[in-house]
Amino acid sequence: MKILITSGGTTEKIDTVRSITNHATGALGKIIAEKYLREGHQVTLVTTKNAVKPESATNLSIFEIEDVDSLIKTLKPLVKEHDILIHSMAVSDYTPVYMADFEKVKSSDDLDTFLRKDNHEGKISSESEYQVLFLKKTPKVISLVKKWNPQITLVGFKLLVNVTKENLFKVARHSLIKNKATFILANDLIDITSKHHIAYLLDHDNVYKATTKEDIAQLIYEKVKKYD
Amino acid sequence: MKILITSGGTTEKIDTVRSITNHATGALGKIIAEKYLREGHQVTLVTTKNAVKPESATNLSIFEIEDVDSLIKTLKPLVKEHDILIHSMAVSDYTPVYMADFEKVKSSDDLDTFLRKDNHEGKISSESEYQVLFLKKTPKVISLVKKWNPQITLVGFKLLVNVTKENLFKVARHSLIKNKATFILANDLIDITSKHHIAYLLDHDNVYKATTKEDIAQLIYEKVKKYD
Repeated sequence: MKILITSGGTTEKIDTVRSITNHATGALGKIIAEKYLREGHQVTLVTTKNAVKPESATNLSIFEIEDVDSLIKTLKPLVKEHDILIHSMAVSDYTPVYMADFEKVKSSDDLDTFLRKDNHEGKISSESEYQVLFLKKTPKVISLVKKWNPQITLVGFKLLVNVTKENLFKVARHSLIKNKATFILANDLIDITSKHHIAYLLDHDNVYKATTKEDIAQLIYEKVKKYD
Repeated sequence: MKILITSGGTTEKIDTVRSITNHATGALGKIIAEKYLREGHQVTLVTTKNAVKPESATNLSIFEIEDVDSLIKTLKPLVKEHDILIHSMAVSDYTPVYMADFEKVKSSDDLDTFLRKDNHEGKISSESEYQVLFLKKTPKVISLVKKWNPQITLVGFKLLVNVTKENLFKVARHSLIKNKATFILANDLIDITSKHHIAYLLDHDNVYKATTKEDIAQLIYEKVKKYD
């Protein structure tokens, strides 16, 4: 079986010196990758420079990406040649379009014009007390996966912050259906500590609970295997 | 001599999962620290989690900070008890205040209200095609140094992107005077590659050129020593 795993968090550039980064250590993706490597599978890991990674192995390939754009370019051909995608990467929802002084934005009578602008300076500089950054939604990578390869088994991830379990499951099931995923791993940031990582693996009818990253890796491995 | 060095880049939180980060590997600060350590000085390094750091040594203390707020809290007492500050850290100029849907901003008749708002959600979520992030200027850390300790020898850094040498020197000298620095290390991002790092150490009357990070460390070491 050829297993594709994403981990870490994407970074979207504001200018040459600043970026918006989605925090993710890559720790969970690393542990999942190590589980599949131990079981003798061929693993491809798409990750980021700062993410923690498994030690190199003959059955492991690693690709590094930065932003959503490079993620899509890298992932598309890989999705087509893998059997399973475990998509644990924290992908940026928005990417910077234009940054302007607050006073300039305030005095404009058509804010839409800022959505069509570009910062040509390498490093945006300003003496203004306030600045305004306009951002645009990025393509939802998870929604493209089954279009690229309808046969792939997709395990999506949904991280929310400080919500009820009911709400977490509702959002996860919505993602499951919308993205034609086989499973969604749902978790809440407040349930993640250095020792514990409470998470729920959901399919259409069931919820399976895990309490550590090793647990999560084992659970995904077992359930995906059973499903195939 | 007690040497205080800052390195790496600060990170300002948008919400619990996203931040704006100033890119800086910490490589130059590390090499400068190693130079002073080799010469037998007591070195304190204020840096960030992702920055590269010297190996631990008995005459080296390391403090890790995240954002401008924690930088100021950490740096203030340290500045008071050191003889020299070499401030190579890339410090965020702006910090997020509030994020809102573009349509909400567009339909508002008083944009100032957004500057007084707070995102209470842990993870700001949105289905909107565009979002708007309002940012506020951070305190200029370099301008506080000589107020905290008028006796300290201050070496400031100025990184610009793709400007003329004339403009780079003008901006650096402005910083030298405004912040009562003894030297400013001026450099342009386009002159920094994996092998070379062209930089200019300026005081009121002179410009000294260096072409590698090791060169820069040597130059700062010599000129600061001569000055004292």
